[in-house]
Amino acid sequence: MNLPDSVTRRRFLHGLAALSTFPAGALLAEDPGKKNAKASGNCAECFPVGEEKILILIYPGFTAMDALGPEYFLSCMTGARVRFIAKTAAPVRCESGFEITPHLTFGQLPEKPDLFLVPGGAGGTLEAVGDRVTCDFIRKAGLSSTMAGSVCTGSLLLGVAGLLEGYEATSHWQTLELLPLFGAIPSKKRVVFDRDRVTGAGVTAGLDLALELVRLYRGDFYARGVQLLGEYDPRPVFPGGGNPETAGADITGLLNEMHRPFVDRMGATIRESLREKI
Amino acid sequence: MNLPDSVTRRRFLHGLAALSTFPAGALLAEDPGKKNAKASGNCAECFPVGEEKILILIYPGFTAMDALGPEYFLSCMTGARVRFIAKTAAPVRCESGFEITPHLTFGQLPEKPDLFLVPGGAGGTLEAVGDRVTCDFIRKAGLSSTMAGSVCTGSLLLGVAGLLEGYEATSHWQTLELLPLFGAIPSKKRVVFDRDRVTGAGVTAGLDLALELVRLYRGDFYARGVQLLGEYDPRPVFPGGGNPETAGADITGLLNEMHRPFVDRMGATIRESLREKI
Repeated sequence: MNLPDSVTRRRFLHGLAALSTFPAGALLAEDPGKKNAKASGNCAECFPVGEEKILILIYPGFTAMDALGPEYFLSCMTGARVRFIAKTAAPVRCESGFEITPHLTFGQLPEKPDLFLVPGGAGGTLEAVGDRVTCDFIRKAGLSSTMAGSVCTGSLLLGVAGLLEGYEATSHWQTLELLPLFGAIPSKKRVVFDRDRVTGAGVTAGLDLALELVRLYRGDFYARGVQLLGEYDPRPVFPGGGNPETAGADITGLLNEMHRPFVDRMGATIRESLREKI
Repeated sequence: MNLPDSVTRRRFLHGLAALSTFPAGALLAEDPGKKNAKASGNCAECFPVGEEKILILIYPGFTAMDALGPEYFLSCMTGARVRFIAKTAAPVRCESGFEITPHLTFGQLPEKPDLFLVPGGAGGTLEAVGDRVTCDFIRKAGLSSTMAGSVCTGSLLLGVAGLLEGYEATSHWQTLELLPLFGAIPSKKRVVFDRDRVTGAGVTAGLDLALELVRLYRGDFYARGVQLLGEYDPRPVFPGGGNPETAGADITGLLNEMHRPFVDRMGATIRESLREKI
């Protein structure tokens, strides 16, 4: 418990409820006039427990889940401002084909964000790795943020932007081998914190990464509240099936064989991108 | 294994790879001209393993994760068409404040969808429960689909639309008690299949629900592939912390106390909505 007494604890959770996804209605529904409390900042007045500035990059072809899993848990923090930032103001098409409208453009980078998070993808990430404007922005946003992080192949973008040199980091299990290209030290952990960097493994690891961040920013009790609100009690169909070391040699080998061309091409693009910078 | 031989198995996974989120680049990156293969249907030709029509309702204030978690896994099925459907063509603002562009409007309901899925929310779901146009559409879409399902408080919308009478079902743990209002039988299971209905518990249960559906539609091997691609090997910060029965009486009791007004108001709105129909 990080909270001094039960009254504070209740106000704390009340504040959490005001902005979290599920229970917002619990408070807001009592007074329709309060519906826009989040936008107007009234909820922060209810209980001003935080005001983290969190930016999540979105780019054409990004894997939506890499960005939206973290967004779910992070936006449960009362007062935190979680915003999607993109090259232009136009809706950004994710890999599976739907569009999300960004809140901000590269030109509107806020001062000193607390967190800058980069999602991964496949073809879209390959293109982004080769896109100077995007990589330069990632470098700028990462360096100006208290912490820079990634989910899945997003770590390849952090790396090409020069943000992972000498850092322990992770990535989707199939692209872990590429991390040394830019001086990162590959880790098989699901979430890796190393000083001012945090990286998550493939896709759904973004949920675990975000919940760790909620704990970091708001403490254990808050994070427990968020986990319970999101009913995050996962029961994967195949226990161990999401980890290459336990999923079975048949499926792991097959996927590795299938994706060899992608991993090779990503490696070549990363090398080329790094050469151009010299 | 549902697959007859290793060659078929490889082609099967190859098809999966062509459309799934992570490895799409593995194939598409080899030939930039194939980038729009998904849209043009070329990938279905590579290996036409399925053509499920899946609709996910989005409405103002829906919890993004309830819809996008399932979208992630379901869109990994080669050839499946996963589409967001909304009242109008305008971008729909989710509860945490960002906007998603729907693919279809209520007037464009495809014939005989395989699955119609309804996400939950808090204040937004309360409004939707009281919105005749939305509830009528849910009824129409649900009845015309092979299976109708929900995540989190989305089951309250299915129920008000008359689609859960006599069915075992679940909901967010805090709204389970409301299911009998429309004749559903509450279950504490994370994912509940009952004939042509499937319901998931709160928010993140949508991931488990979707993976169960992938298994249902494509078999064990395919579902294993999807789970491994999404690296779905969850490690919640607090083991058991996402289940009200194991999260601890302190946090569970506190959240229950806080959300009593919301649950009561939702109950009243459901009763009113059901009365109006008589």
